Amino acid sequence: MTQRQIKLGAFLMQTGHHIAAWRHPEAQADAGVNFRHYVELARKAEAAKFDAIFFADGVAVRNSNPAALARIARSDQFEPLTLLSALAAVTERIGLIATVSTSYHEPFNVARKFASLDQISGGRAGWNLVTSATTAEAQNFNREHQFAHADRYRRAAEFHDVVTGLWDSWEDDAFPRDKEAGIYLDTSKLHAIEHRGAHFQVRGPLNVARSPQGRPVVVQAGASEDGRDLAARTAEVIFVAHQTFEEAQAFYGDIKARAAQYGRHPDAVKVMPGIFPVVGRTQAEAQEKFERLQSLIDPLVGVSLLSGITGGFDLSGYDVDGPLPELPPTEGPQSRQRLLLDLARRDGLTIRQLYLRIAGARGHQQVVGTPGSIADQLQQWFEEGGADGFNIMSPWFPGGLDDFIGLVLPELRRRGLFRTEYQGSTLREHLGLARPEHPAVLARRAAAAPRAA
Amino acid sequence: MTQRQIKLGAFLMQTGHHIAAWRHPEAQADAGVNFRHYVELARKAEAAKFDAIFFADGVAVRNSNPAALARIARSDQFEPLTLLSALAAVTERIGLIATVSTSYHEPFNVARKFASLDQISGGRAGWNLVTSATTAEAQNFNREHQFAHADRYRRAAEFHDVVTGLWDSWEDDAFPRDKEAGIYLDTSKLHAIEHRGAHFQVRGPLNVARSPQGRPVVVQAGASEDGRDLAARTAEVIFVAHQTFEEAQAFYGDIKARAAQYGRHPDAVKVMPGIFPVVGRTQAEAQEKFERLQSLIDPLVGVSLLSGITGGFDLSGYDVDGPLPELPPTEGPQSRQRLLLDLARRDGLTIRQLYLRIAGARGHQQVVGTPGSIADQLQQWFEEGGADGFNIMSPWFPGGLDDFIGLVLPELRRRGLFRTEYQGSTLREHLGLARPEHPAVLARRAAAAPRAA
Repeated sequence: MTQRQIKLGAFLMQTGHHIAAWRHPEAQADAGVNFRHYVELARKAEAAKFDAIFFADGVAVRNSNPAALARIARSDQFEPLTLLSALAAVTERIGLIATVSTSYHEPFNVARKFASLDQISGGRAGWNLVTSATTAEAQNFNREHQFAHADRYRRAAEFHDVVTGLWDSWEDDAFPRDKEAGIYLDTSKLHAIEHRGAHFQVRGPLNVARSPQGRPVVVQAGASEDGRDLAARTAEVIFVAHQTFEEAQAFYGDIKARAAQYGRHPDAVKVMPGIFPVVGRTQAEAQEKFERLQSLIDPLVGVSLLSGITGGFDLSGYDVDGPLPELPPTEGPQSRQRLLLDLARRDGLTIRQLYLRIAGARGHQQVVGTPGSIADQLQQWFEEGGADGFNIMSPWFPGGLDDFIGLVLPELRRRGLFRTEYQGSTLREHLGLARPEHPAVLARRAAAAPRAA
Repeated sequence: MTQRQIKLGAFLMQTGHHIAAWRHPEAQADAGVNFRHYVELARKAEAAKFDAIFFADGVAVRNSNPAALARIARSDQFEPLTLLSALAAVTERIGLIATVSTSYHEPFNVARKFASLDQISGGRAGWNLVTSATTAEAQNFNREHQFAHADRYRRAAEFHDVVTGLWDSWEDDAFPRDKEAGIYLDTSKLHAIEHRGAHFQVRGPLNVARSPQGRPVVVQAGASEDGRDLAARTAEVIFVAHQTFEEAQAFYGDIKARAAQYGRHPDAVKVMPGIFPVVGRTQAEAQEKFERLQSLIDPLVGVSLLSGITGGFDLSGYDVDGPLPELPPTEGPQSRQRLLLDLARRDGLTIRQLYLRIAGARGHQQVVGTPGSIADQLQQWFEEGGADGFNIMSPWFPGGLDDFIGLVLPELRRRGLFRTEYQGSTLREHLGLARPEHPAVLARRAAAAPRAA
C-alpha cells in the first residue's frame, strides 16, 4: 500500500488572502479582473501538482462603509465559474473548484454548469456548495434580509439532492450515438428526477450527458451545527477554518463520526483546513514578510473587516485599542463569529490586535515560519487526526504561492508527504474519491445478486 | 468612407443545424459534449474572420416522445456560457455570443457572468437575451406551465434594464488602485442601481468592474409583436428567421423604424437573419449534399420536430402525407408557428413535405446552391434593405462550415462584401457598434454644456 499523502488546494483570490495584499509592491493590483494573472497562477499550481485550484465567492459588494470599501480590493472580481471554465481550457490535470451559492441560484442551472465544466475539463470539476449569509447579497436578489440560518441550510440540503439527482439523469452508457441505426440515445437509460420538495420542483432530466467523474466533487465549508450535518451527509471535501490543532482534531473526529452515521466511509470525506502560510528561509525572514504586509493595513480597513466577519455589527464607534464588545446573535456565518470571539477572549485582544491577528487568514490558521516548521505543522495535523490535506491561502500573489511551492513543497516531498507527479487525470482520482456508480446500475446489481436465505 | 460590409455570425450547434446532421458520416456524433470539437470550430470561424460565434440554448430536454427523442442529437449539450468562457481562453479576436434565458435566471447572476466573460475575453462578449417558451423548461424551474407570452416579455424587459444598469455599476475609471495612497477604488464613481420593479428588486452594485466594451453586446431573437418592441428598444443585434426576401425587407424596415421611435440611430441595431447554406461547386452538387442529409431523417423525428415548433401540438396521429391540421393558439414561440403555417398554406404542403422543408433551417432561410448564387442572395438581402449581416447555420459540422468558409467567403470578399482581416479587437468594433458611455459621464457632460438661451 502506498503512503497516505496530503491533499492540497490552491485557494486563489485576487491579489492574495491578506487584506492588504493588493498594496504589496509585487502584487498585480488589478488581479480581480485580470485573466492572465489567473492563468499564471493556475499553471503554477498545476506544475506544482496541487490537487485543485479553489475559488470562493460572494454575490455582492459586501462593505457598506465607503471609507473602508475604498481601501479594500474585493469589489471587482470574476464570477468564479466563468473564470474556472476559461481556466479549464488552459490547464490539463489540476482540479477546478468553484463556489456557487444555493441561496440565489436554481439547481437545474447549477447542475448543468458543473456537468458542463466536468465535460469540458475531462473530469476536473468540483462545486463548493455554500449558502449566502449577508444582507448585501439578499438585497441583490429581491429580498430585504438574508434567509434565517436554518432555512438556508434546509434549502441547501434540498438543492444538493436535486443537483446530484440531475447529474444522474443519464446512465454512463445512455448515448450509443449509432449513426447506422439512427439511435442517438437509449431512453431506458434516462432517469428524470421528478423532484417535488419544499423548495424546488424539478422534473429533469438534465440536458447534459453523465460527466467524466459521474458527479463533480461536492465541497462544503460550513462548520456550524447545520453546516456539519449537511457536510457529513453530502460533502466529499470540507474546507474549514481552525485556529488550533485541538480544534482541528475535534472537528475532524466529529465529521468522520457523523459521516459514519450516514453510512459513509470516513475516507469518503476529505477534511482540508485553510492554512495561511508566510514562508521565510529563516523565522526572522518570515516574520519580516508578515510584518511588511501587516504594516499596509489601514485601521479603517481592519475595523471594517471585523464588522464584516461579525455579520455586519458596526465596530467603528469603539476604541480600536479597547476590548471587543459583546456581540448580538446573528443570522450570518455563525461558526466564524464564535471562532472570533473565542480567539479574542482567549488572548485578551484589543480590537486592533484582533484585526491584525485575523486580517490575513480570516479565521484560518496563520503560520509564519520556515519550510521545516511549516512542514512540521502540516505533518502533525495530517498524521494526528486533524486533516486530510490543506487549502493553501497564499498571503499575496504570486510571491506567497511561489514561496510555498519553492520552499515548503520540497520539504513535504522529502518526507514523502506530497506527490511528485499526478497519478490520475480527474479531481476524484487526485483526491482518492471513488467515482460514484449510477444508482440504477447499483439497483440492477442488487436485484441480480443471489438473495440470502 | 469604407464600404459597408456584411456581418457574419457562426451559429455553432452540436453536430449541425440539420436535424439528421449527427448521422452524417463526417459528423462528430458526440459533438454536444466534445470540447475539442468546439475549439476547432471556434478557431476555424476566427481564422475566417467571422464577427462572432453564437450559441442557442434551452433549459430542458425538449422532446416528450421517447421514440423521437431517441433519434435526435439535442439532449446532451454544454451549457453555452460555460462553453463560451472556455472558448474565450483559446481564441483571440472573434466575438462570443451565448444565449441565457431571462425566464429562469436572476439578473444579478447574468450581469456578473457576462461582465466576467467580457473581461476574460478582452471585450468580446454578447448576450442573446431570450425568454423560455416551453412547458418542459418551466417544469425544471418550480412551475407546471410556462409563463404567458406577454408576461415573459414584461419580465425580459425589466431583466434587461437591471442587467444593463448593473453593468454601469462603476464608471470606467472607478478603480485607481493606488498602492501608495492605499486607495483601491473611488466610491464617487460607484452607482448602485437600487432597482425596485414589478419582477425584481436589486440593490447593486455589481462586484465586477465596468467591462472592456462598457456593456457586453445585447442580442435578441424574438420576432413577435412583444419581441419586436423589446428588440427595437434594447437589442443591438437581432437574429431572426425569414423565408422570403419580402419578409426580410418588411421586418428590417419595421425594426429600424421602431428603433428610431425609441430615439435610436438605425445603425445601432444590426439585423442578422439566419441562413442555412448548403454549398456545392455546382447546383447539382449542392442539391446532392442536401438530399443526402434529408434522406437521413427518420419520419418519427420529422413529425416530432413539427410538434416541437408548434408549441407541443401532437401531430403523430395525423397522416404524414396529408395536410397540416388547424393548430390551436399557443403560448409558445408565436412567430415561428405563424411562419410555419404560412409556409404550409402557401405551398400546399403535406406534413412530410413540411418537415422536410424545415428540418434543416427550422424556419430560417435555406439556400442550396453555388458560391455565386448564395453570394447573390446574401448581397441582395444586404444591399436592398433586408439584412445587415447573417447568422450562418451550417447544416453539419465541420463540413458545412468548411464549405461556407472555403467557397462562399472568397466570393463575398471578391465583391468587397466581407472583411479580410479584423480591424478592431472587441465585438462592438467588429459589428460597428459604439461603446456606450457611462450614464454618469453623459450626465456630467450635459450639465457642463452651455445652456441654450
